[in-house]
Amino acid sequence: MRGLFITLEGGDGAGKSTQIRNIERFFEEKGLVVTHTREPGGPPIAEKLRAILLDPANSEMDAVTEMLIYAAGRAQNVREIVEPALERGEIVICDRFVDSSIAYQAYGRQLGDMVAEVNRRATGGLTPDLTIWLDIDPETGKARATHDKDPDRLELESTAFHTRVREGYWSIAESEPDRFKRIDASGTIDEIKDEIYHFLEELCKARGL
Amino acid sequence: MRGLFITLEGGDGAGKSTQIRNIERFFEEKGLVVTHTREPGGPPIAEKLRAILLDPANSEMDAVTEMLIYAAGRAQNVREIVEPALERGEIVICDRFVDSSIAYQAYGRQLGDMVAEVNRRATGGLTPDLTIWLDIDPETGKARATHDKDPDRLELESTAFHTRVREGYWSIAESEPDRFKRIDASGTIDEIKDEIYHFLEELCKARGL
Repeated sequence: MRGLFITLEGGDGAGKSTQIRNIERFFEEKGLVVTHTREPGGPPIAEKLRAILLDPANSEMDAVTEMLIYAAGRAQNVREIVEPALERGEIVICDRFVDSSIAYQAYGRQLGDMVAEVNRRATGGLTPDLTIWLDIDPETGKARATHDKDPDRLELESTAFHTRVREGYWSIAESEPDRFKRIDASGTIDEIKDEIYHFLEELCKARGL
Repeated sequence: MRGLFITLEGGDGAGKSTQIRNIERFFEEKGLVVTHTREPGGPPIAEKLRAILLDPANSEMDAVTEMLIYAAGRAQNVREIVEPALERGEIVICDRFVDSSIAYQAYGRQLGDMVAEVNRRATGGLTPDLTIWLDIDPETGKARATHDKDPDRLELESTAFHTRVREGYWSIAESEPDRFKRIDASGTIDEIKDEIYHFLEELCKARGL
């Protein structure tokens, strides 16, 4: 049987890393094999692209260039990691996926429809079975996230940019309510975990797992 | 007045570098300012992408990933170097451009129409005023080119691949005869230069230069 593809979305400070570990635990307790990957990044070639994307030195980067580099890394991640694992029947958890490009590039950078079009080519049309969006107010997320490290190129963007990003996520939530689940990330770690587990149980039930 | 955008195409060993210097000389003798760039590469961000593309260590690279990285570098080159120079009225000479992606990715890698589609997005529709294709039989080019350095990732491709690339160039030559000029690159450096200068004179005449 083909595996399940689960992605997480959400700005900095939303607590994605913690919840990814909780999701891994959920499936491992069911005796399922979990493969973890992330975007930008994943396989070695995509990690090299990630370094270019996040380096604050690359401040001259054009919005279209950026969008295409994200798509390039995604194409590699899908073909080298995600698809082979799904074909082996594993659970694949990916930290960010196409929805990030819709939110950050189509809405944040205002590139519009070309982002979805290019990403359909990059992924070959692969869509997650479930996406969890940990929604947090940009200001709150920023305050939580920037204590432990220097901000990367994306984190240095304006509040207006991050507000448009959030609008992008809202628009996906409205157009794909079955796949794309919003969770209020201002709650406690355990509250968020419980909400996620509810969606995971629903998914497993629907797939007979 | 807006400048002129001239691109060179052709496989390894076709003598592109020598002829690019001849083209520069042609315009400098007319008192025009020449800006030179190349693909993959050009501006610093695109040169970082070039290093990933050509590194033989990246043998796992998927064909779609590769196509998107080329397009990303091109987007940066167009917006950071080519368009600003054209707006200043300069002559821009670019070593390889979209036609390379059509030949190598659409034909060589057999990715088809998505290559033109993605590149329209990458370039914003910018098309060269003149493209010179230095056509050489792949075997002859290979013999000429590989004496002076280790082959890069693209040069390591099969003869079948390079034959498809050449078919791609032929197909562009047939569909865009006014812009895309084929020159037999098995001739001497001076013979090739004379043919190129003939096309450059035609172009200048047409533009009143």
